[in-house]
Amino acid sequence: MNAPTNHQFKLARRPVGMVQRGDFEYVETPVAQPGEGEVLVKVLYISLDPAMRGWMNEGKSYIPPVGIGEVMRAGAVGRVINSNHPGIVAGDHVVGMLGVQQYAVAKGKGLTKVDPGLAPLPVYLGTLGMPGMTAYFGLLEVGKPKAGDTVVVSGAAGAVGQVVGQIAKIKGCHVVGIAGGADKCAYLRSIGFDAAIDYKHEDLKAALKQHCPKGVDVYFDNVGGEILDAVLTQLAMHARIVICGAISQYNEAKMKGPSNYMSLLVNRASMTGMVVFDYASRYAEAAREMAGWMAAGKLKTREDVVEGLETFPETLLKLFKGENTGKLVLKVAEA
Amino acid sequence: MNAPTNHQFKLARRPVGMVQRGDFEYVETPVAQPGEGEVLVKVLYISLDPAMRGWMNEGKSYIPPVGIGEVMRAGAVGRVINSNHPGIVAGDHVVGMLGVQQYAVAKGKGLTKVDPGLAPLPVYLGTLGMPGMTAYFGLLEVGKPKAGDTVVVSGAAGAVGQVVGQIAKIKGCHVVGIAGGADKCAYLRSIGFDAAIDYKHEDLKAALKQHCPKGVDVYFDNVGGEILDAVLTQLAMHARIVICGAISQYNEAKMKGPSNYMSLLVNRASMTGMVVFDYASRYAEAAREMAGWMAAGKLKTREDVVEGLETFPETLLKLFKGENTGKLVLKVAEA
Repeated sequence: MNAPTNHQFKLARRPVGMVQRGDFEYVETPVAQPGEGEVLVKVLYISLDPAMRGWMNEGKSYIPPVGIGEVMRAGAVGRVINSNHPGIVAGDHVVGMLGVQQYAVAKGKGLTKVDPGLAPLPVYLGTLGMPGMTAYFGLLEVGKPKAGDTVVVSGAAGAVGQVVGQIAKIKGCHVVGIAGGADKCAYLRSIGFDAAIDYKHEDLKAALKQHCPKGVDVYFDNVGGEILDAVLTQLAMHARIVICGAISQYNEAKMKGPSNYMSLLVNRASMTGMVVFDYASRYAEAAREMAGWMAAGKLKTREDVVEGLETFPETLLKLFKGENTGKLVLKVAEA
Repeated sequence: MNAPTNHQFKLARRPVGMVQRGDFEYVETPVAQPGEGEVLVKVLYISLDPAMRGWMNEGKSYIPPVGIGEVMRAGAVGRVINSNHPGIVAGDHVVGMLGVQQYAVAKGKGLTKVDPGLAPLPVYLGTLGMPGMTAYFGLLEVGKPKAGDTVVVSGAAGAVGQVVGQIAKIKGCHVVGIAGGADKCAYLRSIGFDAAIDYKHEDLKAALKQHCPKGVDVYFDNVGGEILDAVLTQLAMHARIVICGAISQYNEAKMKGPSNYMSLLVNRASMTGMVVFDYASRYAEAAREMAGWMAAGKLKTREDVVEGLETFPETLLKLFKGENTGKLVLKVAEA
């Protein structure tokens, strides 16, 4: 076999503040061959997620940090070239932690087969992937919305937020999205949100008061910072806050805590953290239900596809600058 | 009847920062007479509570603020002089919101009769009063400790904290108290805490690591600020944080939020606010159980009694300076 060349982004140093190209090393290497139980995959689409910023930091978290000199961790979908794993054959499409590279050698048991005939491949990184699972379990298992509840979600036009809001609508809630910019807000209204607040151009507290006259029953927080603090001032009694992320703070040297957290006391409210991996045994069940909603036209998906592995550092920055609408993916190859 | 003279502390202005004598007006007035359904009570002991600082602020909270010119709100226990309420007669001892004054006219239905033969009167403001109820319901209903759990409580030598720790011991937990000063820590060990950390003189994080080697399962927070932030770094998986108060922050112009709150996500943990009034229908049940523990020697109480109504502003400050050990009460009269 004429081994093609692989290109990889490796973590070169721990970022300080906003992530930048110099935090990575872009290298060319021969494509490795799969060992026993392993699979060689040609990467087609790479998932860009806010959580990646956290994986670049030293220190204890829900998974170990990416080591210096290691290929940057990323979820991705690709086509199998060569398999030494039973149940996976060349030509299969698989999703898994394939990393920021053109070719990945991965353990077969960590991969999940997907069907490009049922949904476009990027959807398996978005609504039918980790972000969709995060939205589904975070909202339903932690937020526990009841019909008639007011549900607010931040980062609402992102991969997780857009799904949170649509599932909340399916469950009969009054849904308010917070996003940056008129275009994103128009998108949210177009997929059925009852209201969308442009936090960059509106008075957030006043807008929350207007759109949540009975207070906020469930707040799904993807952003932290000032937005979390503003929503805390508008809680309904016994409100549930789902802590899913804090993208506004990931590039800050020192996280800002929610100054208004005593609203939890006044309102007998709770703030609970969630990590999607805890629900792995139920992903298939959730994917089935969400695929059904998609087929019925109740759950729409949108992906923001950027081409070219070599653009990875700058494309990742789109997340932290709030420039993406829908799931941000990097297209590495056509097929 | 020769009407005796009443002395009262009225709220003169909203405090800015630390409360001071000038925030109150000390006035002499005739003793009022009770109307229909009302009772005249001679106040014997006044409860001094951290929550009083919050009641002095303008704005929405779990109860309305004390109005400017109104007698400062306070729980108190006293002896009935004169009653127009069925079921209460002169000579009865009652507890209720009697205010910072020598004589109170109160609606009879807001008062609860207590028996000075069963427990000293100040205990009805502490372990058998609001602080005890707060500890009981906050720990058991919100913290939900299981035998073997590590339970940490801050403000541990205060009225609530000392009861939280002792109930956690009764439930089979490993109990660590955080308090300021060697005397308070010695007191905590003397009533059965497994460990006590003097946050003023020890490295709090290192001490938490030492005394909570498996992490913190339940944290009962009375103080907020730096201590809450330190405990957040030491959570066990699925930890429960009970937000009961934030005494370190009540006199600050701007509350400090917990910067390390993303530990809730990493550890799938929750932070939940509680207000004792929600459990009012179950106070009697809790008081019975706690009186039983007291009789069995499993639950000890300590009160810090300061004499003289006129010392009220300075005595209240003891709370915020951390100078009290056990329940702080102001003794107004002997009987």
